[in-house]
Amino acid sequence: MSAQTMTTSDRDTRHNERMQRKKTVVDEKIAAAQAERGVLLVNTGNGKGKSSAAFGLVVRALGHGMKVGVVQFIKSRGDTGEEKVLGGLPGVSWHVMGEGFTWETQDRARDVATAAAAWERARGFLRAPEIGLVVLDELNIALKYRYLEIDTVLADLLARPTMQHVVVTGRAAPPELVAAADTVTDMTPVKHAFAAGVKAMPGMEW
Amino acid sequence: MSAQTMTTSDRDTRHNERMQRKKTVVDEKIAAAQAERGVLLVNTGNGKGKSSAAFGLVVRALGHGMKVGVVQFIKSRGDTGEEKVLGGLPGVSWHVMGEGFTWETQDRARDVATAAAAWERARGFLRAPEIGLVVLDELNIALKYRYLEIDTVLADLLARPTMQHVVVTGRAAPPELVAAADTVTDMTPVKHAFAAGVKAMPGMEW
Repeated sequence: MSAQTMTTSDRDTRHNERMQRKKTVVDEKIAAAQAERGVLLVNTGNGKGKSSAAFGLVVRALGHGMKVGVVQFIKSRGDTGEEKVLGGLPGVSWHVMGEGFTWETQDRARDVATAAAAWERARGFLRAPEIGLVVLDELNIALKYRYLEIDTVLADLLARPTMQHVVVTGRAAPPELVAAADTVTDMTPVKHAFAAGVKAMPGMEW
Repeated sequence: MSAQTMTTSDRDTRHNERMQRKKTVVDEKIAAAQAERGVLLVNTGNGKGKSSAAFGLVVRALGHGMKVGVVQFIKSRGDTGEEKVLGGLPGVSWHVMGEGFTWETQDRARDVATAAAAWERARGFLRAPEIGLVVLDELNIALKYRYLEIDTVLADLLARPTMQHVVVTGRAAPPELVAAADTVTDMTPVKHAFAAGVKAMPGMEW
C-alpha cells in the first residue's frame, strides 16, 4: 500500500501498532534504570540553552521541595531575569561571583582570584547535604582559561553528598569533567538570531 | 618560549593581550546586531535540556516584566516541578494539554484531537500582543506524527505580534520550522545518566 492510498484509518492503525511496540522498548529501558542518586550534568557547546536549561532545573528542583545553590563564575551583571525571579524565591541561595566576560576584564590575575573566591562558595554548597541542586554557571570558562585547577574541582564534585545534583555550564567543557559526568549535552548551534543581526533581547539572552 | 618555561606572569600577559583582541571582535559583532524584535527559538535534538531551557527563558522573561503563555502538547502529568513553581507565578498562563507520551496513548485519532485543542490555545497566545513569550513545549512531537499541519502552525507563528518571542521544543523539529526560526539549537547527547542505569530523578527529569 503506497502512502498515496493510505487512509486516515490505515495511518491511525499503523501508528497505534508502532506505538505499542515502542512502549515495550521504553518500558524495558525504564525497568533497567533503577539507581537513585544525584547526577552530575554538564551543559556545553557553542549553542544557546546551556545556562537557561540549568535555570529550568532550578525551577524543577524547587517544585520538588529541594534547596538550590547557584554560583555564577563569569557573569557580573546583577540585572538578569533569572536572578530577579529565582534569587528571590525561598530555598534559593544565588551568588553572582564573576566580574564580567573574560574579554572585558582583560586581567587574568584578577580573574584567577575571582574564580578562587567563587569556588570557595561552590565548595560550601558541595559539602552541604541539605542542598539538593548546585548550579555552577559558566564554570567551564574558568576551567578553560585555567583560572581553576580541574583536579581540585573534580575532587570536590566527586566528594559531594550522594543525592546531590550538580549542573555545570559553559562552552568547552574539559574532557576530564565530561568523563566524570553522568549526563552531558552539547548545545549545538544550528543557527542564531545574533548572527542574523538581532540584538541580544531581554528575556531571551539575560 | 615553551609552555614549560612560561611563567605565570607570561601567561597572564598573553591572556590579557588575547582578550584585548577578542574584545574588539566581540564589540564589532554587537555593533552589527541592532535589530530589535521577537525571535522564534527552536530547541531540538535527542539530548537533555530542550524543555528545561525553555523554562529557564520563562524565568528570564518574567524577570523583565513580560507575560508568558505555556502550552504543553504531549506531557499530561500535573506534578512537574516546573508547573508547580512557574504555573503559580503572576504573569504566567500554563496549560498542560497533552494526554501523555505517544506510546502510552496508542490512539492516534485521540492524539490528533488533543493536539488540535492545544493548538487553539497556542493560537490565542500568538494573537495576544500582551504576551511577551510563548512556550510551545513538545510541539515538534505533534508535528512529527502529523497530529498538526506544519502549514497551519507556521502561518500562525509568522503572523504573531512583532515583539513576541516563541520557543518551540521537542525532538525532530521539521525542516520547515527550522527554516522559519531565528535561533535553532540541537541538544546533542554526549552521554545520559538514564543509559547508565540511573532512574529519572525528580528535580532533574520533571
